[in-house]
Amino acid sequence: TGTSVLICIRQYFVDEDDTVPQKVVVQKNSRRGVHFRRAGPRQRVNFESDEVKACIVSCGGLCPGLNTVIRELVCGLAHMYNVNNIFGIQNGYKGFYSSNYVAITPKTVNDIHKRGGTVLGTSRGGHDTKKIVDNIQDRGINQVYIIGGDGTQKGAYEIYKEIRKRGLKVAVAGVPKTIDNDIAIIDKSFGFDSAVEEAQRAINSAHVEACSAENGIGLVKLMGRYSGFIAMYATLASRDVDCCLIPESPFYMDGEGGLLQYVERRLKENKHMVIVVAEGAGQDIIAKSIPASDQLDASGNKLLLDIGLWLTHKIKDHFKSKKMEMTIKYIDPTYMIRAIPSNAADNVYCTLLAHSAIHGAMAGYSFTVGMVNGRHAYIPFYRVTSTRNKVKITDRMWARLLSSTNQPSFLRQKDIDEAREADRLTNKPPLPPVANQNVAKAFDQSVFCEI
Amino acid sequence: TGTSVLICIRQYFVDEDDTVPQKVVVQKNSRRGVHFRRAGPRQRVNFESDEVKACIVSCGGLCPGLNTVIRELVCGLAHMYNVNNIFGIQNGYKGFYSSNYVAITPKTVNDIHKRGGTVLGTSRGGHDTKKIVDNIQDRGINQVYIIGGDGTQKGAYEIYKEIRKRGLKVAVAGVPKTIDNDIAIIDKSFGFDSAVEEAQRAINSAHVEACSAENGIGLVKLMGRYSGFIAMYATLASRDVDCCLIPESPFYMDGEGGLLQYVERRLKENKHMVIVVAEGAGQDIIAKSIPASDQLDASGNKLLLDIGLWLTHKIKDHFKSKKMEMTIKYIDPTYMIRAIPSNAADNVYCTLLAHSAIHGAMAGYSFTVGMVNGRHAYIPFYRVTSTRNKVKITDRMWARLLSSTNQPSFLRQKDIDEAREADRLTNKPPLPPVANQNVAKAFDQSVFCEI
Amino acid sequence: TGTSVLICIRQYFVDEDDTVPQKVVVQKNSRRGVHFRRAGPRQRVNFESDEVKACIVSCGGLCPGLNTVIRELVCGLAHMYNVNNIFGIQNGYKGFYSSNYVAITPKTVNDIHKRGGTVLGTSRGGHDTKKIVDNIQDRGINQVYIIGGDGTQKGAYEIYKEIRKRGLKVAVAGVPKTIDNDIAIIDKSFGFDSAVEEAQRAINSAHVEACSAENGIGLVKLMGRYSGFIAMYATLASRDVDCCLIPESPFYMDGEGGLLQYVERRLKENKHMVIVVAEGAGQDIIAKSIPASDQLDASGNKLLLDIGLWLTHKIKDHFKSKKMEMTIKYIDPTYMIRAIPSNAADNVYCTLLAHSAIHGAMAGYSFTVGMVNGRHAYIPFYRVTSTRNKVKITDRMWARLLSSTNQPSFLRQKDIDEAREADRLTNKPPLPPVANQNVAKAFDQSVFCEI
Amino acid sequence: TGTSVLICIRQYFVDEDDTVPQKVVVQKNSRRGVHFRRAGPRQRVNFESDEVKACIVSCGGLCPGLNTVIRELVCGLAHMYNVNNIFGIQNGYKGFYSSNYVAITPKTVNDIHKRGGTVLGTSRGGHDTKKIVDNIQDRGINQVYIIGGDGTQKGAYEIYKEIRKRGLKVAVAGVPKTIDNDIAIIDKSFGFDSAVEEAQRAINSAHVEACSAENGIGLVKLMGRYSGFIAMYATLASRDVDCCLIPESPFYMDGEGGLLQYVERRLKENKHMVIVVAEGAGQDIIAKSIPASDQLDASGNKLLLDIGLWLTHKIKDHFKSKKMEMTIKYIDPTYMIRAIPSNAADNVYCTLLAHSAIHGAMAGYSFTVGMVNGRHAYIPFYRVTSTRNKVKITDRMWARLLSSTNQPSFLRQKDIDEAREADRLTNKPPLPPVANQNVAKAFDQSVFCEI
Repeated sequence: TGTSVLICIRQYFVDEDDTVPQKVVVQKNSRRGVHFRRAGPRQRVNFESDEVKACIVSCGGLCPGLNTVIRELVCGLAHMYNVNNIFGIQNGYKGFYSSNYVAITPKTVNDIHKRGGTVLGTSRGGHDTKKIVDNIQDRGINQVYIIGGDGTQKGAYEIYKEIRKRGLKVAVAGVPKTIDNDIAIIDKSFGFDSAVEEAQRAINSAHVEACSAENGIGLVKLMGRYSGFIAMYATLASRDVDCCLIPESPFYMDGEGGLLQYVERRLKENKHMVIVVAEGAGQDIIAKSIPASDQLDASGNKLLLDIGLWLTHKIKDHFKSKKMEMTIKYIDPTYMIRAIPSNAADNVYCTLLAHSAIHGAMAGYSFTVGMVNGRHAYIPFYRVTSTRNKVKITDRMWARLLSSTNQPSFLRQKDIDEAREADRLTNKPPLPPVANQNVAKAFDQSVFCEI
Repeated sequence: TGTSVLICIRQYFVDEDDTVPQKVVVQKNSRRGVHFRRAGPRQRVNFESDEVKACIVSCGGLCPGLNTVIRELVCGLAHMYNVNNIFGIQNGYKGFYSSNYVAITPKTVNDIHKRGGTVLGTSRGGHDTKKIVDNIQDRGINQVYIIGGDGTQKGAYEIYKEIRKRGLKVAVAGVPKTIDNDIAIIDKSFGFDSAVEEAQRAINSAHVEACSAENGIGLVKLMGRYSGFIAMYATLASRDVDCCLIPESPFYMDGEGGLLQYVERRLKENKHMVIVVAEGAGQDIIAKSIPASDQLDASGNKLLLDIGLWLTHKIKDHFKSKKMEMTIKYIDPTYMIRAIPSNAADNVYCTLLAHSAIHGAMAGYSFTVGMVNGRHAYIPFYRVTSTRNKVKITDRMWARLLSSTNQPSFLRQKDIDEAREADRLTNKPPLPPVANQNVAKAFDQSVFCEI
Repeated sequence: TGTSVLICIRQYFVDEDDTVPQKVVVQKNSRRGVHFRRAGPRQRVNFESDEVKACIVSCGGLCPGLNTVIRELVCGLAHMYNVNNIFGIQNGYKGFYSSNYVAITPKTVNDIHKRGGTVLGTSRGGHDTKKIVDNIQDRGINQVYIIGGDGTQKGAYEIYKEIRKRGLKVAVAGVPKTIDNDIAIIDKSFGFDSAVEEAQRAINSAHVEACSAENGIGLVKLMGRYSGFIAMYATLASRDVDCCLIPESPFYMDGEGGLLQYVERRLKENKHMVIVVAEGAGQDIIAKSIPASDQLDASGNKLLLDIGLWLTHKIKDHFKSKKMEMTIKYIDPTYMIRAIPSNAADNVYCTLLAHSAIHGAMAGYSFTVGMVNGRHAYIPFYRVTSTRNKVKITDRMWARLLSSTNQPSFLRQKDIDEAREADRLTNKPPLPPVANQNVAKAFDQSVFCEI
Repeated sequence: TGTSVLICIRQYFVDEDDTVPQKVVVQKNSRRGVHFRRAGPRQRVNFESDEVKACIVSCGGLCPGLNTVIRELVCGLAHMYNVNNIFGIQNGYKGFYSSNYVAITPKTVNDIHKRGGTVLGTSRGGHDTKKIVDNIQDRGINQVYIIGGDGTQKGAYEIYKEIRKRGLKVAVAGVPKTIDNDIAIIDKSFGFDSAVEEAQRAINSAHVEACSAENGIGLVKLMGRYSGFIAMYATLASRDVDCCLIPESPFYMDGEGGLLQYVERRLKENKHMVIVVAEGAGQDIIAKSIPASDQLDASGNKLLLDIGLWLTHKIKDHFKSKKMEMTIKYIDPTYMIRAIPSNAADNVYCTLLAHSAIHGAMAGYSFTVGMVNGRHAYIPFYRVTSTRNKVKITDRMWARLLSSTNQPSFLRQKDIDEAREADRLTNKPPLPPVANQNVAKAFDQSVFCEI
């Protein structure tokens, strides 16, 4: 039985938390003023091994480590809790209602962590709460593991609410995935480390191209729609980058202190330079330079304009007008980064996330799993989707970057003060004490077995 | 002295060629009916070590191995012939007359083979025969090593002719460079092996992206303006590619046997596919689909249109019109491939080319160096620039590719017959016997010391 | 001047610590009950830029990241504090008194982070406090950066004490280095991540060898004389390992629950297995099996016996006696791991360590730098050398490993209880409150400018 | 039917050979004076697709590319000849009679070329001609593909002879495998390129270790029991090696011109050096220094003594006696090289070998496949096993190596003359004209369908 299984597990997983009653064990998070339940195996499980019917789905874009998370969910359930009824949902949310469920065993996933991508397939969208929960109910699934980003976790929350509404004994465990590292609350998202490592290769190529030409510029676009973490860390790790542009730090092209002036100065000093730009950087200045009608797609949605191509043309035009010969090589390694297998550090991290998710689901919780201030925690869904993690440009890490690239900050003192004030507000406990109690309560309610 | 240096070298480099008089040593090339001088050290050198003043220039696009060739020219001259007066020309041909000449020693180039690109810098164009030879003459340079492609070798020939006209004692040695492997006569160009190896990484990413989506297509554009060698070998090496398109094999999009039909069939069978396209493939069909005015650049030159982007849009449109959901990811790894350091096989090959070039120049020849039918040879300049090496689509290697991808041949029997007839004509001795004697004569004249 | 430089830096590096007086800024370390000064730039520096004469030395075995630390010390001093008088000490401690001091500039170290090893050279031993401080004094050095392990930091402490005794205005900053990750107090040592990553390659080879033979065993020896962190993390990251042996977890060969029984069972179940062993594991059982006289080197020191070779022979003998055919392949990748360049994560980490060291030295402190509970801190020398960081076998991470490999724990309940009690004691504040005040006081004394 | 299959293949594989009668098509091999049949598809096949029952076995040590050959045999048979009855023999020759035969399909081998090792398993020995042929006969196998080295090909010849004796309609096709590149007649063995590439990593580590120590020596042992090809090419590719020792070039330790003198001189000049040694080098000098009784294993067979360890000790002792401090790091990357997946060049080469083997077997031949002077050929078994390919130390490539490392040749003029005379004799047609006819005859007899 589940309990007896747990007993044999417990000899490994005993820690001090287990000596006090479960339900009041919370982790003090003094910096943010919020309490999350610490992740890990529990004294009491809410499922017998042989009653568990788990399913796993992966949604959204590729990210190194997806296969490792899938592998460890399967192997962890099988080896730690003796669960053998595990199914893969194919190609994202829509697979819940439109595709066959595929049985997965530790054997079928044994080597998948050495491959990039996701063996389950993935897709964007396709979320239809009712159809999904219908299928969960009809097929008797009682543990749902959902790997995906911001939108996916919102979907997971909807599924969880519908499940609670219907009074089903189903645990929903989210594993947050974002190669951009922009999920709020959690310290770091899986795959980020691997992505930064692989980005070095593109930066290095840009550097070689730049150095081999007279007035050579290498321009690399990296992932980061709203947050420049990959660009920032890749720049810091490489030390070959002369300018890093991210969404959080606005910049301007022309005039004193502008990008073009800096590029020109750098070429004159050094004969070559490397620029790294996050895909979400400078969207405002492109928008100004392009007719509004060209910025919507067929459905009227706002398009993310290709900052890399735009910069390439702008820089070329600038030097043409100055009659200064130069060469620019633009590299977009996005798909080559997304598709790599995870590195060793991410493999370990994915394993811990998967195991936390399993322990929580076996204990009957519904939650998103994540590391918070160095500890694995169970976080209510809505907490990770309500805000987004961003590079703080008043923080030390960005200062270190500016110091390493010698690029202009593109900021006036006023900008800095405003940013600091904004950060100060963000660092306040995001919810007033009363709300906080509600959080705790809401979270308690997420434990279906107590309803 | 040079002679005494040579004597100590000769104990290592004796081969049967040395036992017969130099001038009649030719290599029988029965397949092509042309004779080239076999490369290697000579019994008699035409320069004393201390009179040699050599310079090295690299021109055109990047290619793995450039730095290895440069390193081995410098180290070979220094260690084999005791030559210590070696200069680097910066940033291509124009560096002959517009930049400082930089002294290079074995020490300064000791580690450069581990880096991509070229430490000398490179550029396109900038060839001004008169100015270049003026500078060679004025600075007392007597050995010129020129690393570059088709156009560069043509330039080298012009330099050589001008030098002969002026009666200067200067040896001009070309080292042909083309990552596309499309230089005529020679078996293989340096850097090609490394490029094919690195292309695997992009194909692998495309494969991962394709497999992780429903009806996923991964599209990789590889180098090859006129010749599809990289695309063909990368496809054969990878085994993950379902379709390979090269300039030599015309294809069509629509209708029975067309590309779109094949893509559709493949997705239905397999749920995903990988397409590799050489940059020069399908230029004719893009041209037809785009107004002529858009195909010229500012100077009225013909633009190479981006087949990768064009195919991406065409395929998307096709499936949109068929209301079939699919995902396509387009990867252009060009600059990431060009910029890698050469692999072990290319390192050895570059060393042999550099040493051949040195032995020939020390013996007073002017020539392009290359491996022909498995032997290192000295080739008159004009022979490597008059035609271009292409994939023979009636040959076994292309047949193997078709068999490995299962793609349609896009050819009717009539096309095959025509191609075969064209090949038959090409395989004939390209020059009549009389002309052949002229070749030999022209080549002998390339030995300045005999004029 | 230094102050004006700092002012321009301060706009980047402002954090809340700066708003309270320096000397009382301490970091609450509730878990360990000890306070360390938080690392970072200070409001007041104790050196003018142009009076600084800094030197850098690296000691002990190779570790990925050494060159990055050296590079960032040089570039950080030059770019952040305008310091241009920086020297490299060659080949470890003895270089202080027996070799030339080599001037280093940002330009000479620009690319070294892409290479493994240390450009300064390194050696073991050679510490002679008096001679070293004599040279520091005579040459007018006033900042000494010392990169090295346990023994090296002890040496740094001796140097610091001698400097204080002589009343010199010299800051001594230690950067702790240990590929084994066994330095006490600090969260993680630089290079560890890269080492775990590279170890995957060896484990993977062992796995391939094991799988390709009938009853194939792949045995990999990894670094870790006293602590099994590399072995543990490499095992967790790889998922191909069936048994991981570390110094902290004693094991036995024969009988019920012994290693040989497990190996035999595993081969019968699975036909192959992979074993990872830390170099310091099982020294007690080898010692028992080998005459004492063979365990000392010429100087009478205790030798670390090669557990990898010993296990290979033991396992071979066992199966020979059982007449069971098997194959064992032993891989020792130690030098191939040590010599790699650091990966992206370690590059960033090395940069932060180097910058912390610079800020502290410029402010006049003497200390070892390190990350403690997620924050960069200044730690008194003796604190990092008095104990050693070890894998806690009662902790979750080791439990996760046991669960992932399915290996026996080799422990009786009694062993576990004892280990837990030992850990409990260790987790206590390691010094009584009174002692703690002494620590604080000792630390304050380490600020020479207050003496 | 087989014929109709072939017709559809023929449209791809037509070459001029097909226009002349098969049986007299021979390839002129002017250099060696021997004729081999050119490999490739034939006009007439001797098997119907649905009667073929093929099996594949791999024997001996690991080599990059084994899995690619296996994959391409399976896929080639299935896709080119519609053969679907293919079995894998497990763990080498003994698997013919002691293990289950495993059905293999293109699907099961689809991704195996990305993994090192062999999915079939391998072993040494286990050859029992009678038992093997009994099983072939009993199970109705009619095509046997045997991948393995020298000894394995001898075994294949025995199997072929037994099959002919019994009058069975069974084709035996050998694919020669040797990571050492020492198989006679053929130009290059598969996996060699990949091995040389991977060896760079070990040499690079040795170089880093050597450079980071004062008087540092890095010593790398590479594969090559009888032939030093890997050591020679890895040395030429790396350019970091100061001395390369191979079995073909005897050396001595002590005295004028000896290795120890060279090492000492090199350290004095350069402060560090890298030595590469093939495992078979210097066996004679070790033998002299060790009692004969220690050189035999339990069965009385001659042991290959570890030249790497032996050299390490000898060099250490030498410098100890000279009281000169130095450090030596010994790296043995053998298993890490053997176990890598094949690189792109080897993947293409393995494919061609596999396809040649298939075409020959389908045509009813028994043979070893290989590239000879640039052409794929069918070679009688005994021809590849009667001699061994060796580095010619009087040849240019070895001269290039000596010139690149600057190492002493360790040879007196007398040695060179003798070696040259030996080579001259070897280069003679190895069999007299009469014998040659016998070869041709013997070869014809190998076509079972004509008996």
